[in-house]
Amino acid sequence: MTKKHSIILQPSGSRGQVDEGQSIRSAARDLGVEIESICAENATCGKCMVLIEEGRFEKYNMDSKRENVSPVTNQEAAYFARRPKLLKDKGWEVGQVRLSCQCKIQGDVLINVPEESRGNKQIVRKSATQREIEIKPSIRKYLVTMTPPNLERPIADWERLAKGLETSMGLVRRGEENLPRWSDFTVDYTCLRTLSSTLREAKWNVTVSVWQDKEVVQLQAGYHEDSYGAAVDIGSTTVALYLCNLRTGEILAAESEMNPQIVYGEDVMSRIQYTIEHKDGLEKLHKAIISTLNQLLKQAVKTANERAYKDEEADSGVQKLASETRTASRPTPESKTRNDIKVEDILEMVLVGNSTMHHLLLNLPPKDLGLAPFVPAIHKSVDVEARELGLHINSAGNIHVLPTIASFVGADTSAMILAEEPHIQDENWLLIDVGTNAELVLGNRKRLVCTSTPTGPALEGAHVEYGMRAAPGAMERIEIDQNTLEPKYKVIGEDGWNTDQAEFKGQVKGICGSAIIDGVAELFRTGIVDSRGKFKIGLKSKRIRQGESGWEYVIAWAEETSIGRDIPMTQQDVRQIQLAKAALFTAARTLLKRFGLESPDKIILAGGFGSFIDKEKAMLIGLIPDCILDNVYAVGNAAGDGARIALLNVEKRREIESVARKVERFELPTDPEFQNQFMLATSFPHMSEPFPHIAHLIPNRVADPMAKNFMK
Amino acid sequence: MTKKHSIILQPSGSRGQVDEGQSIRSAARDLGVEIESICAENATCGKCMVLIEEGRFEKYNMDSKRENVSPVTNQEAAYFARRPKLLKDKGWEVGQVRLSCQCKIQGDVLINVPEESRGNKQIVRKSATQREIEIKPSIRKYLVTMTPPNLERPIADWERLAKGLETSMGLVRRGEENLPRWSDFTVDYTCLRTLSSTLREAKWNVTVSVWQDKEVVQLQAGYHEDSYGAAVDIGSTTVALYLCNLRTGEILAAESEMNPQIVYGEDVMSRIQYTIEHKDGLEKLHKAIISTLNQLLKQAVKTANERAYKDEEADSGVQKLASETRTASRPTPESKTRNDIKVEDILEMVLVGNSTMHHLLLNLPPKDLGLAPFVPAIHKSVDVEARELGLHINSAGNIHVLPTIASFVGADTSAMILAEEPHIQDENWLLIDVGTNAELVLGNRKRLVCTSTPTGPALEGAHVEYGMRAAPGAMERIEIDQNTLEPKYKVIGEDGWNTDQAEFKGQVKGICGSAIIDGVAELFRTGIVDSRGKFKIGLKSKRIRQGESGWEYVIAWAEETSIGRDIPMTQQDVRQIQLAKAALFTAARTLLKRFGLESPDKIILAGGFGSFIDKEKAMLIGLIPDCILDNVYAVGNAAGDGARIALLNVEKRREIESVARKVERFELPTDPEFQNQFMLATSFPHMSEPFPHIAHLIPNRVADPMAKNFMK
Repeated sequence: MTKKHSIILQPSGSRGQVDEGQSIRSAARDLGVEIESICAENATCGKCMVLIEEGRFEKYNMDSKRENVSPVTNQEAAYFARRPKLLKDKGWEVGQVRLSCQCKIQGDVLINVPEESRGNKQIVRKSATQREIEIKPSIRKYLVTMTPPNLERPIADWERLAKGLETSMGLVRRGEENLPRWSDFTVDYTCLRTLSSTLREAKWNVTVSVWQDKEVVQLQAGYHEDSYGAAVDIGSTTVALYLCNLRTGEILAAESEMNPQIVYGEDVMSRIQYTIEHKDGLEKLHKAIISTLNQLLKQAVKTANERAYKDEEADSGVQKLASETRTASRPTPESKTRNDIKVEDILEMVLVGNSTMHHLLLNLPPKDLGLAPFVPAIHKSVDVEARELGLHINSAGNIHVLPTIASFVGADTSAMILAEEPHIQDENWLLIDVGTNAELVLGNRKRLVCTSTPTGPALEGAHVEYGMRAAPGAMERIEIDQNTLEPKYKVIGEDGWNTDQAEFKGQVKGICGSAIIDGVAELFRTGIVDSRGKFKIGLKSKRIRQGESGWEYVIAWAEETSIGRDIPMTQQDVRQIQLAKAALFTAARTLLKRFGLESPDKIILAGGFGSFIDKEKAMLIGLIPDCILDNVYAVGNAAGDGARIALLNVEKRREIESVARKVERFELPTDPEFQNQFMLATSFPHMSEPFPHIAHLIPNRVADPMAKNFMK
Repeated sequence: MTKKHSIILQPSGSRGQVDEGQSIRSAARDLGVEIESICAENATCGKCMVLIEEGRFEKYNMDSKRENVSPVTNQEAAYFARRPKLLKDKGWEVGQVRLSCQCKIQGDVLINVPEESRGNKQIVRKSATQREIEIKPSIRKYLVTMTPPNLERPIADWERLAKGLETSMGLVRRGEENLPRWSDFTVDYTCLRTLSSTLREAKWNVTVSVWQDKEVVQLQAGYHEDSYGAAVDIGSTTVALYLCNLRTGEILAAESEMNPQIVYGEDVMSRIQYTIEHKDGLEKLHKAIISTLNQLLKQAVKTANERAYKDEEADSGVQKLASETRTASRPTPESKTRNDIKVEDILEMVLVGNSTMHHLLLNLPPKDLGLAPFVPAIHKSVDVEARELGLHINSAGNIHVLPTIASFVGADTSAMILAEEPHIQDENWLLIDVGTNAELVLGNRKRLVCTSTPTGPALEGAHVEYGMRAAPGAMERIEIDQNTLEPKYKVIGEDGWNTDQAEFKGQVKGICGSAIIDGVAELFRTGIVDSRGKFKIGLKSKRIRQGESGWEYVIAWAEETSIGRDIPMTQQDVRQIQLAKAALFTAARTLLKRFGLESPDKIILAGGFGSFIDKEKAMLIGLIPDCILDNVYAVGNAAGDGARIALLNVEKRREIESVARKVERFELPTDPEFQNQFMLATSFPHMSEPFPHIAHLIPNRVADPMAKNFMK
């Protein structure tokens, strides 16, 4: 038996018995306390710092000592050696402060989780757009009424049903050719198991749900009109699920949740690494996403039923009033039994995600996605029964996963193409899905090329000194006054600009992606940094100062924050954004060149990130190629839309299957010439490109096109 | 917590702690001691009698008391009231002797299981016949060698494999039309899960097993020639499994085992009843058969490997000798790793069984098989993945269950038709599969009719006073001398006739099916019973005497038996056989009449029973219609053969699917005219039929065709 120790986590006060040898981060998770981590527990990101409190805590009858956890490791020591200022500012000493991913429990301890390290439930900003989708679902329902068997016609239940179904389908779809014969129908095994009892309970009058015009997947007693499906976009960070009525196409509920795999690493590479380094890693990551999908399904059904109930109440309220007025003496009519949707009534799910999410969902080892030559297990779409994956929709329900295009161009890109339809355009469209990794698709009805590029986590707020995800307390907008060089900002969870408010104190925690773009663009626009991204020395502002890692510009003073420290944007942060935008820009430029184009006719920014960045500022720093601003569209969750389209229209699945197979994948070259292009692209907006559409914003300074080694 | 008590079972000495309230029979089963039962624990068959021993048993430190078990139930009292002679002969009193299915444990007890009640592992006499089967299995293997992926061609693993497979299949089957394109192939989900790792471990050189020319179900590193399948006949009593090489058709192992469902009732109706009366009844019966199938698979693989090992040893012995002679100095070559078959290498199973076995195998509620209008859940063949049923062959392996024809004409009859092929004959063949239930098929290439009739368990040795299954200690042959009226018999497990041996004592335990037919035929042939089945009074033999339930003929005296009692055939036993043979005969007669035939051109007796009965004697008592004796064939396990044919030849599955759908099912009528026919058919051989082919054997007595009420 493993020894157990008591731990207490402050300030939440969560406590419990945990196994000796468990890391604090893992133990905290078991007690329901999420501690941040980005580096897949590699002791490099420092987001998981905790404090070991010493002393006798009478309230808990506990003696907490630093000796009750494992000694500081070399990696931890190395990390803290890189952060002298932090330790000094906070007054922490190494040993008191620990990286909770490294520090293991060996006795009773009381642990303080500082504000910065706490994991928060993210505000999910994705939402489904209203879009015209032709409804041709894979599931269709038919009412079948049979003559019960008798000694003269004792034909088996299945054959009786299949014959009835042939008749019923023929009536409903009169005139259609190539309708199946009764002997062509098949039945899902779990559905067969309950066939006999359902037919009898239903007195031989059932609604039959048929998948793809061939397989019977559900029998319901009596008449049922509606069937249900779910479309899901599994992002590395966020999972968004839409519960749909497959007959009407209506979205009955949209639910989203953090991707629980985040605790195993924030980016796909960390998660791939986790599956390689841990024997049960794949199983854990797979189960985590399945479990979240099951929760989302449950929640979506609940939401849909509550909504239906409210609608009904509203209706019956009107009716009641009317009936009271007219026939006050009539007794109340029998209350109709509500036809609640159950999770088992969901008969199909369509899922999309990047190739890593795709593999983890399907429990396929993602190892080779992360190793050259970067090969997925499968391109073509996958159909698998819900019960094979442990998804709690109807066990005969089908799980359809859209095709992948390449190792870093996944089913989410297929879905984006399906939603935005560049493959039927005469114009040349450039689709960009920005995340930790960016996927780009360029082309028209004749040809599509795609590529992907790691943009690094900077655009999502990571690897930036005070970067964070789009969560409460994060700055989401920054502006700097050209004259005073004073900033103003907006914070998620607060209304308006900070400067508009009488008191604005102790709220800010960090900077999220959109504000980072804003910040860098504003530093450039106001001339605080030059076109090479370097801080300009000698400007008159107390906000520009020499910081721990070089020059920095303070956006929020310590007293405006909840972390008690100044929040600056540093030279290093600007460099991170320069690298990210150079990667994205070079990828776009390369695709355009292969196409012989100067610029695309339209730029479509997909993903939650695209919806929140200021497109003018994005162009100002050269994140996206020059283009008429009006032709730059932010379309929100295009991947989710694509999933929904494939859910509601089975022909669209065949369409994207064939389109995905034809998309040309272009690997960004690794030769020196390309590297040079990439280096040039780090400048604002781009050293060798005309940017006519934002020219009026570019500071009147001449960039030095020959500047070398400017990154040092 | 349930209270526990100690029980000891003698003479085996098995002991253990069992739950309070458990029946002795169930507790004994838990301790590995099988106690007979035929009546599904309904307190009617009396096969499960045990003795509760009283006293202090120092050796076990136990006080055993009759009060430590539940009181005698009304049903038990009623049963023993019908058996006064048994109690007197044995010197047992009610309370000491109990029906172990009824008697529940309430304290420590020592229990004596008398010889008659002990369950024995049955000698299974079914064996596969050598039969020419064209080998066209559903599984075919292809060696696929691929160029590993590189950055220039980073196509996904599945697509790479599928393209290689298309090429490989094209080479192997050059000239065949309609071979699938690479994009037509599908892959089983569990196979996809290990695809990437297998391809890399195998260095892109794999043997691919393809099911039905479309679905990839297994990848093996390197070159593999053989694939394996299993054909199974699930009888109510015996399960027979043949492990086959799907390439050569060779039977690598034939294993059989009792059907474990027997403990829940010997006949199908008792088992159906069990599922109706017990909430978890179906689950129990289903799991029991699945578990036995898994054991049989394991055992068959072991047998096949041992056999291969022996062959190899023999071969290498020769080689070694040769090499030693020629090159004595050469070092011993590295011992080749043996290519052992593993259970996961079995890629398909074909199963047959009567409709109840079919339903229990597939976990389908069999309720409606047993209730008018007697409807199975499904006629058409079922294909289901091994993992859905928990069968331990390759999880992607397919389980194919042959089609059923009617509620009492199951997949075993389909298999029998497939094996014996009446549907391609010009002559009219009558196929009879005799068991507790008999299925009959009559016809030719143009038309087939079938029916079934309950023959009762008498023909299998049940419901006959000293009847038993074909197990060691059972008489299997009986002859009676026409002059002395003295019998002789053969016993399973002993050589020759009892009269040929100097000492023959204490061996006989009961009478099995074939000897019961013999016995009745001999009683009739020697005139001990008349053509109405009545014992003739006044014959000079001490063996003919008034027994407990009327007249009887003693075949073995108590001292020749292991049960210490005389073993007679009683008037009641003769009546049981008369009823059984009347049922079978009337069914055959009715089919012949519907066909306008006097007699069939050929009679084929299928099943283990058919192989062991004396066909002349069967005809003498009118069990089968009159026919030239040479045209009566006993074909053994035709159902097993049919399963094997369907396993090895996929076209045969389509053939039987279409034939089974066309077989006309004829229900035996319930009108008085038919009942009258049935009553007339109880006489020997048949009151109104000419039996020219066994006329010389019929005693020279005139049957009274008008005899009424002769059964009383």
